[in-house]
Amino acid sequence: MTSVNFAVHADTIIPVSGTQSVLNNYSIVVQDGLIKQLLPSTEARQLKDLDHVELPGHVLMPGLVNAHGHAAMTLLRGYADDMPLSAWLNDKIWPLESQWVSSEFVSDGTDLAAAEMLLSGITTSSDMYFFPDVSARRLRAAGLRTQLVFPVMDIPTAWAADAREYLDKGLALNDHFKHDDLVDIGFGPHSTYSVDESLLSQTAMLANELDAVVQIHLHETAAEVLSHVEATGERPVDLLARIGLLGPRTQCVHMTAVGNQDIETVAQYGAHVIHCPRSNMKLASGTCPVKKFKDAGVNVALGTDGAASNNKLNGLAEMQAASLLAKLESKDPTAMSARDTIQMATLDGARALGLDHVTGSLEPGKSADFIALDFTHLGMEPNHQIESNLVYANLGSEVTWSWIAGKNVVKNRQLQTLDSDALHHKAAAWRGKLSP
Amino acid sequence: MTSVNFAVHADTIIPVSGTQSVLNNYSIVVQDGLIKQLLPSTEARQLKDLDHVELPGHVLMPGLVNAHGHAAMTLLRGYADDMPLSAWLNDKIWPLESQWVSSEFVSDGTDLAAAEMLLSGITTSSDMYFFPDVSARRLRAAGLRTQLVFPVMDIPTAWAADAREYLDKGLALNDHFKHDDLVDIGFGPHSTYSVDESLLSQTAMLANELDAVVQIHLHETAAEVLSHVEATGERPVDLLARIGLLGPRTQCVHMTAVGNQDIETVAQYGAHVIHCPRSNMKLASGTCPVKKFKDAGVNVALGTDGAASNNKLNGLAEMQAASLLAKLESKDPTAMSARDTIQMATLDGARALGLDHVTGSLEPGKSADFIALDFTHLGMEPNHQIESNLVYANLGSEVTWSWIAGKNVVKNRQLQTLDSDALHHKAAAWRGKLSP
Repeated sequence: MTSVNFAVHADTIIPVSGTQSVLNNYSIVVQDGLIKQLLPSTEARQLKDLDHVELPGHVLMPGLVNAHGHAAMTLLRGYADDMPLSAWLNDKIWPLESQWVSSEFVSDGTDLAAAEMLLSGITTSSDMYFFPDVSARRLRAAGLRTQLVFPVMDIPTAWAADAREYLDKGLALNDHFKHDDLVDIGFGPHSTYSVDESLLSQTAMLANELDAVVQIHLHETAAEVLSHVEATGERPVDLLARIGLLGPRTQCVHMTAVGNQDIETVAQYGAHVIHCPRSNMKLASGTCPVKKFKDAGVNVALGTDGAASNNKLNGLAEMQAASLLAKLESKDPTAMSARDTIQMATLDGARALGLDHVTGSLEPGKSADFIALDFTHLGMEPNHQIESNLVYANLGSEVTWSWIAGKNVVKNRQLQTLDSDALHHKAAAWRGKLSP
Repeated sequence: MTSVNFAVHADTIIPVSGTQSVLNNYSIVVQDGLIKQLLPSTEARQLKDLDHVELPGHVLMPGLVNAHGHAAMTLLRGYADDMPLSAWLNDKIWPLESQWVSSEFVSDGTDLAAAEMLLSGITTSSDMYFFPDVSARRLRAAGLRTQLVFPVMDIPTAWAADAREYLDKGLALNDHFKHDDLVDIGFGPHSTYSVDESLLSQTAMLANELDAVVQIHLHETAAEVLSHVEATGERPVDLLARIGLLGPRTQCVHMTAVGNQDIETVAQYGAHVIHCPRSNMKLASGTCPVKKFKDAGVNVALGTDGAASNNKLNGLAEMQAASLLAKLESKDPTAMSARDTIQMATLDGARALGLDHVTGSLEPGKSADFIALDFTHLGMEPNHQIESNLVYANLGSEVTWSWIAGKNVVKNRQLQTLDSDALHHKAAAWRGKLSP
């Protein structure tokens, strides 16, 4: 696909917009990187002066939005599992990070993450890690639409020495990508337990001035909330509200340890929740009450978190886990229906990132960010219901093609913007270096 | 692979036996359907008079054991999702079953299930459904090692008119397969709420006489336990214990609604638990406290349940869900480690079915039931830890080869005992018939 104008013809389209949830024998027509129209295939096939891609047996849908991740940590996948959280962090992850994290580590890890995300249908990703300038460049080179939230903290690392340098470098990053259609920069204060109130307040002020997003790990475990309340008398989410860090540009990641009052607070301030079901399960953190948040009117998006705690960056797998877990948590098998879950992984993700005017659904005028899934394997048969199969029966390996802003980034299961062989070689080199 | 004597050479073997959990650069040597030995590949490659299969980048492990399923229901995959349990059963599943279930339905649905199970590494499956004679024949034809538990009930269906006919037909089935190495027949009374005490007692007596296994849905939901206690003053598991239906040949399926006293009872009687994590989540049934059962010394196996409530019959996906859910449920990230989960899906499954002398681990003298998984995709990189990748990072589509009793049933991702094209055609025909 070198042409900027093309049409893709498939069996079924899930537009995540409009009145019909599924369009059969439909096509997507793309012009100059934007969706021009959705048409019955019989009409679309007549269009002249554009390339035609025929994908029989396929479903087309908006690309998935991974609203929370730490791409570079993919180099640590499976390095330390089945451990208590404190030993995992103190004995394994942090020592390893302080020894190894560099621009090279971040570059190679982010490339590997980008590959896995693209191959599982993710077209927009959010990232939070050290050397965010490197991550932003690598994700952009891979063709991913990216929200990069740079770290805000007061602990010296290889990337910055103190709070002032973190903020300076982050603001420079924001300047650098100001006019980039694919990259948005935001603030990523790690959490209320690792960033003090004055720095959080400063973050709130700066984010407000710049109209930038803020993403923060919040209420990830009961212990986090309890210790904060014991130390300050205040719940973490209430601290954010008091200092002006909770609002429609705020993305609260995890939210597993919440009471009804917390849900009301998030709803009242119009903040978003980023749900990371697989990471929460694997770390035994707890369960985000997704149904309650949604019933209260809160927008909930989906994130993979990092591969050190998941261990997959697979948008389809995350969708499946989110629906199953929501039913279990709410004791209600009707919770997070297949349709709702598809919207959570696409349009609601775009909303959380403030990008729903650009991506997340297949509508004329939006960016051509969409994927094709091969629904012809036996695990989809008898294919009674497309949306149900997509959410509950996917293997996570159905994606065959992907376009972002009209650019073809996956073609017949092959990465177009990354070199698979090089990724394997670099991963093997890092395995050698990191192995104890 | 037509030869009965062959050797398979891979990068890594997970034997699920012996002192070493992972063997690098090892081979499996098969003679007359049995595992002859595990050898370093440099030695095994020198062996004469047998075929050699080279699988670089692959992991070999025992085939997975699916200890609970309803294969024929695969024809209902995605037919009715996101519904409350009672409406799902009363308005959708049961009316459909009473209209359509026939030997043809069971034959076609079982073939489709067998295909999906084989392609995801399952080599032993347990099945419970109407027309068990048909299921047994079809699973056997697919080459699967099978435990068939025939229905015991007193409700007329297309298969049998009353309790006497259910038992007569089941006992005839047992006679028929008495000398079959691949098929074991057991009793499958549905549950304590659908089968009355006298028929359960009769089942206990007959199973005892025949030294046959009994599989029963037990404590699947809190409502089931509560209504039984309200009606009888007794918990379902205590009823089984009292009438002699709980013992080392008993497989208790689900066990999500249990207190410590139930766990002690199951442990005391030496019965097995069959855990179906994905089905329990999707139906919002509750969570089996796997860690508590195991800590009490109870053997826990893994099952997919039917595709109408899962919606995958994928052994690798079930393993992944089991580990993540156990960590969440027990609030302990060390619970159900990758290694323990692999054993649950293989050797412990075989133990539950009374087949651990035959299958479930790679040991000389056991049946050559094993699978090869391709670990070369980017989602496995940097491959720090094979067992961790196998459990947490699998897509469920890694299986490339499978052997059962030395017979090659999957070769380079292609089914050897079933016709994929015919399965697609039959599934499409059933979609047409069943669609409202």
